[in-house]
Amino acid sequence: MTVHLVGAGPGSADLLTLRAARLLGRADVVVYDRLIGAEVFDMIAPWAELVDVGKDPNGKSVTQVEINRILVEMGASHDCVIRLKGGDPYVFGRGGEEAIALAAAGIPCVVVPGITSAIAGPAAAGIPVTHRGTSSGFTVVTGFQNPNNTQRLDWDAVAKLGTTLVILMGASRAATIRARLRDGGAPLDTPVAVITRATMPQQQCVRLTLAELGNDDVVNPSIIVVGPAAALELAAVELGTTHDEPPILIANTPLSSMQEKGELPWQ
Amino acid sequence: MTVHLVGAGPGSADLLTLRAARLLGRADVVVYDRLIGAEVFDMIAPWAELVDVGKDPNGKSVTQVEINRILVEMGASHDCVIRLKGGDPYVFGRGGEEAIALAAAGIPCVVVPGITSAIAGPAAAGIPVTHRGTSSGFTVVTGFQNPNNTQRLDWDAVAKLGTTLVILMGASRAATIRARLRDGGAPLDTPVAVITRATMPQQQCVRLTLAELGNDDVVNPSIIVVGPAAALELAAVELGTTHDEPPILIANTPLSSMQEKGELPWQ
Repeated sequence: MTVHLVGAGPGSADLLTLRAARLLGRADVVVYDRLIGAEVFDMIAPWAELVDVGKDPNGKSVTQVEINRILVEMGASHDCVIRLKGGDPYVFGRGGEEAIALAAAGIPCVVVPGITSAIAGPAAAGIPVTHRGTSSGFTVVTGFQNPNNTQRLDWDAVAKLGTTLVILMGASRAATIRARLRDGGAPLDTPVAVITRATMPQQQCVRLTLAELGNDDVVNPSIIVVGPAAALELAAVELGTTHDEPPILIANTPLSSMQEKGELPWQ
Repeated sequence: MTVHLVGAGPGSADLLTLRAARLLGRADVVVYDRLIGAEVFDMIAPWAELVDVGKDPNGKSVTQVEINRILVEMGASHDCVIRLKGGDPYVFGRGGEEAIALAAAGIPCVVVPGITSAIAGPAAAGIPVTHRGTSSGFTVVTGFQNPNNTQRLDWDAVAKLGTTLVILMGASRAATIRARLRDGGAPLDTPVAVITRATMPQQQCVRLTLAELGNDDVVNPSIIVVGPAAALELAAVELGTTHDEPPILIANTPLSSMQEKGELPWQ
């Protein structure tokens, strides 16, 4: 009984780690949500139980409390449980909260890092988050602001920082982000890039300036890159072939019925 | 003729991406430097030419200009060239400079992202770089400061930022970093963690406060984490089995002599 918090990377299935792929092949249960591509599901053992926590049966998001409860329950009753998340479990993945819930219940939990779209997303558009003479570091924040967060992000400091700024989940807040960065002293001609569906065949990248950044430029999920590096267009990450929507899964078919029909991979 | 700038991840070989592993198996040339573990070399096709640019024959580091020259030369004369780097090619990997040199020479170049130790290193010690209520983002910088860098990092802004601060390559500058953060307004009781050989069997993590951070705590290569998240000890990344030193490589043995002796993997 171990729950593995596994990062599925930025989109393309072949950007999973070897460790993640091996684990998926021997998982008893995979608890997943959105942003997981079809080809990732092909790596899951056909007998694994799949639990979609992206939406509840009424189309609402499953709450974090409910996800934690499911992970504890599955972890207590199965040998190898995978909590599969887009990107990296510890980069805005709420992996820390799940780790705490599992520790409180006495369920062993380990983390398998994933490629974060905060770095690979810009790279997929030819933007290095660091580049000698252009950017000596990078800052990653989210466009959401949690009102319970005791460490309120200092946007003035972000604007002054001189590192590449990467904003995840900033889709509906682009105009606010522009205003706060401008008020913090960021020049209005600061280069901005907005990358959508990074590393996927449908990837798009729009280049503009901070003055031009508005909500219209940004659809969800997007990555907003702010700073001189956002103007670069160097070697990029090759786009994957991963489709948007999970396929009809053979893993949803009971093993016994597949066996009857001779449909198992080894039959 | 394509040069692939490939990230080898933070240390453990199974934290390479599937894409990186597949490419290593069909590379004609692999140009590598330090921080690449032995098991990564096992993934390289036995006929591949290996070029170590970590040290020149006199034990000095090979210059970036020389590395660029080698990549252009190899890219022009071979079908599949891999430039293998620890971590991610676009996170302090100087991948951008290599991409520019290759573009100038008309050699196609693509990037394969890797897991950066800036995120997986803290995670390997149970530290999530973001955590609801503790850290709403993270900033990654290097302890080196390039005097030619037009975007001088604003340490006062870093200190005020309220995100988790991750410093790579800060080994010899720990005392200076402490002083600059303190002068910038960071409280002296700010939690700090120093992680050495992240994700490797030899991994060590020292926990202290900003007041206590000094050069003695930090050996090279280390990851320094500063901020409330550095006090967390949640689920961690399992350590790999990768050894420190590259092994004696069969790939350095001419294919013909191995064939004579019946030593090829498929013989």
